[in-house]
This record gives sequence, C-alpha cells and structure tokens, in this order.
Amino acid sequence: MKFVTAHVGSDVFVGVVHEQKIVHLSKADETMPHTMIECIELGESFIEKVQRVLERVRPEWTYALHDVQLLAPIPRPTKNIFCIGKNYADHAQEMGGAADRENIIVFSKAPTTVIGHEAAILRHADVTDQLDYEGELAIVIGKKGKAIPKEQALDYVFGYTIINDVTARDLQERHKQYLLGKSLDTSCPMGPWIVHRSAIAEPHALHIQTKVNGEVRQSATTSQLIFDIPTMIATLSKGMTLESGDIIATGTPAGVGKGMNPPRFLQSGDVVEITIDQIGTLRNRVQ
Amino acid sequence: MKFVTAHVGSDVFVGVVHEQKIVHLSKADETMPHTMIECIELGESFIEKVQRVLERVRPEWTYALHDVQLLAPIPRPTKNIFCIGKNYADHAQEMGGAADRENIIVFSKAPTTVIGHEAAILRHADVTDQLDYEGELAIVIGKKGKAIPKEQALDYVFGYTIINDVTARDLQERHKQYLLGKSLDTSCPMGPWIVHRSAIAEPHALHIQTKVNGEVRQSATTSQLIFDIPTMIATLSKGMTLESGDIIATGTPAGVGKGMNPPRFLQSGDVVEITIDQIGTLRNRVQ
Repeated sequence: MKFVTAHVGSDVFVGVVHEQKIVHLSKADETMPHTMIECIELGESFIEKVQRVLERVRPEWTYALHDVQLLAPIPRPTKNIFCIGKNYADHAQEMGGAADRENIIVFSKAPTTVIGHEAAILRHADVTDQLDYEGELAIVIGKKGKAIPKEQALDYVFGYTIINDVTARDLQERHKQYLLGKSLDTSCPMGPWIVHRSAIAEPHALHIQTKVNGEVRQSATTSQLIFDIPTMIATLSKGMTLESGDIIATGTPAGVGKGMNPPRFLQSGDVVEITIDQIGTLRNRVQ
Repeated sequence: MKFVTAHVGSDVFVGVVHEQKIVHLSKADETMPHTMIECIELGESFIEKVQRVLERVRPEWTYALHDVQLLAPIPRPTKNIFCIGKNYADHAQEMGGAADRENIIVFSKAPTTVIGHEAAILRHADVTDQLDYEGELAIVIGKKGKAIPKEQALDYVFGYTIINDVTARDLQERHKQYLLGKSLDTSCPMGPWIVHRSAIAEPHALHIQTKVNGEVRQSATTSQLIFDIPTMIATLSKGMTLESGDIIATGTPAGVGKGMNPPRFLQSGDVVEITIDQIGTLRNRVQ
C-alpha cells in the first residue's frame, strides 16, 4: 500500500494509491482521520480500515494521479527530521572521512524544509554557493517507543519513503554542527508516497539511484548501510522517545556533487530524481 | 507580563501572573486561545486582550501560584528547540575550544525533551555517565519571518524564558553531531514562564546564575554573549523561516560540570536552579 497526502483545490487529504488512481480515504470512510500522522497513530486498525475501503472502491472516491497535487506524505512533521550522517562507507570517504565508524552520527532538519514531489527546490543563491543533493531511503515511525530493542525495531516502522537531504555544503562546514546547512527552506523534498512496510520484505536490499538532469550520480543499495535500520531505531530510542510520524533519513551513498572532481553543485533549472526499488521516484527541479 | 502554561486537574490553560496569582486567560476572555503558541500567533492583539483582562480581574478567574502545576510555557514546541553552541568565550574555553569564533554553531533538541519548572530530570543512568547542566537565556519567537535584518530582529521576539540545556557529555562527544547527547527525554527544563519582551528593556544585560544543590556553578551576564540575539535571529532566518513559538536557547556561560577539575556530573537527587534577572528561577531535581 502506498499512502499519499494530496490536495485538490482547497481539500487536503490522505489517499491510497489503487490501480493508477488515488482513493480519497475520508470520502470512502468518514471515520478516517484527515492527516497522515493521525492515520499512522491509529496503528493496525488504520491498515484494516484501508483494506476494507479497497475491497469496495467506488469511482466517486477516486482521482486520477494527474488530477491531484501530491504534497509530502507528511507535509508538516511535528519535530525536526532525524538524519543519519555518513552511513555509507563510500560517501564517508568522498566527504574526507574514514570508511568505518564506531558511532552513528545523527543530526536534524527543521520541519519547515519539507516539500513534496515535483515542488521547487529554492536555489538560495544569496545564502549558499554549494547547494547539493543527497538521495536517501527514509523510514517513518509507526508507534511510540523508547529503548526499543533491535529485534523489535522493524515493528516500529510504519513505512518507507524517499528524501532528498538537500544540503548547503558551505553552511554545513562553516557552522560545524550541520543544522543550518541542512535546514534551508525547501531542502527536504519527500515522497512521492509512503510505502507500507508490509510491501517491503527487506528494506536492506533496495537499489537507490539519484540522477541530475538524467545523469546517474548515485547508485547503491541499502545493503551497504553501515548502521542498519534496527540499529538506528535502537540507538535513537535509547534515551529519547520516538513517536508516530517521526522520520529518519538513513543516509546517502557516494556520488554527491561535493564528492566530484571538481565539485558540481546544484544550479537553477537542475532536475534531481531519486529512485528507490519498490518505492518509486521523487523528482524536484531547482528553481 | 509573565505568561505560563499551567494545569489544574485535567484543565491545561494559558495564564498570566498578576499580583502573586495566575489569571486563567480563557476563563477571563472566551476568545483567548488555549495554547501558548496560538496566543503568540495572535501578535499584538493578544497583548491587548491580556491588558483588558488585567484591568478587570475577577477572583473566580484566578489561582494561587501553589494551587496550579506549571508546565513548560510551551509544553510541546512544534519543532526542535534551536540551541546556540559555545556562545560565551569562557565556556568555549572550558570545553577545550577557542574563545573566539567567526561562525555561530547551531544544533537542536527534540521537542520530546521539554519539561516544566519543578518537573524531574531523568538520570538516564543506563545511557549516560556524564549528565550535565547548562543554564541559558532562551528567546521565544513572536512572528514568522525569513531573512530578518538584525535591526528588526528584536521585533520578532515574543519574550524570554530560561532553559536548562541538559546534556549527556559522553553521547555529545561520541556521536560528533550533538543531537543525541542533547535529546534525552526530560533534558530541556523550560520556564517557569515567558516574560514578555516589553518587560525586559535590555536582554543583553541580564545576570544569569546556576546553582547545583545551592552551590553557585555558573555566574555571568548576557552581555558576554559572543553572538547577540539580533545576530542569532538574522543568521538562523537567512534561508530558514522562523515561526511563532520557535525557541532559541542562547548558549551557556562557563561553569558546567564537565569544565570542573575533576568534572562533576549530575547525580540522582541533585537540584539545579537557574536564575536570570527579570525572569525568575527555574528549578529541577534529578530523579
């Protein structure tokens, strides 16, 4: 199941993708919440409700994909997006670091950065000369938990999506801590949807590819993650409560613009497409 | 004016301190919003409404201070709390860094860290051996803005409060980026209230003092801030939109536990009191 947040006119709604169409969930079932986070908070009963809707879909509940505008599946997270740093060995090396590390690096992006599929990434030419892309698998937390054991961690995942962890490299470096370089407005394209975990048997065997203007820049598989998803969830939740709708971007493989020789940063008009197996393609143009 | 979020029984409300009592604002004026962030979003009209309430206070709207439980003035920020790193020269030195710096350091604490005045700080003995305090002046943003010029920055401040930026030093160091070491549950005591900016003529001339079990550990004035409040607001908002209710902790002066010789970290039972001129005292005990 693929879940979207979409809008048509002034109506913003949660939908599920079904036979090339989007089913408007609260039209189909008036007990459905209107936001993705509230849907996720329902837990398994949300999935059961959706299954019942999909068994009796009526045309008046559906939209063609091209008739809706997709927003980020979680348009406004309730806290910063967690991001894992240097979590692919080859990317750690291209950034000038060691390939191995003992401890996970975690930083965040402000929720004001989030935009959806096909929305414009601002160039921010007055603030940065080094705007860069980072294609990443992201996980969406499905239920509240603290001190989650690794063995149970995947039960806390609601689903998977794609994030472009857009980064101003000069700000990232200048300010030491990454937050400012990672938090320019529009620097977190997310989507196009969340794929429910039931549809992805092995999240550590997904091919991930990033293209800029059609040219392949990043190509890797999530099997190369240094810290896997259970380790991330266990480490983050050790003393910090994770909540439904929390988002963890799992890190980016080699091939970012800064790693090229000479570096090639994003310019106005560039189109970044990130494709992950079993999820889809997230596409955004730099304004 | 001092604004609190408080609860009595199941009623959580925004109040204003008046003659040693707390006036329940939505009892006094039914058009008042029920959360601090919504109140702040009203802008100047909120202050005008409060002034009208204070001109005609009735006993049935008021509680004695000891009859309410104070929560953090913003119990659940809508994003991570922004924090400025090493913003007092003497603290930068005690942490092993240079006294001067060219660029501001910004990191964040998850909103799940927030607790109020007199709430317990968890010791997290299973996660850290080095729990430390950091007394800080915090500013609360009053209106949305981007690329805010320094000269206008103070117009974007709603008010001031106190934050204890509780830090697990071992996690802070081990994970390079500070987020995890700064985000253990209960590691952001905040309060006891927000003092409206109209009551503080010069936020850069406030004495700040932290005591642990009555012993003075930190004593400084906000005139020593390396980057002043307008610089913080201008730098953060350069490419990132700031919103009403955003919180910026302005950094801590010298005297943290880690800076002592030998270091003295927080233990169960310790009481941390942070006092800032014209604001008050934030007091929390380690559980």
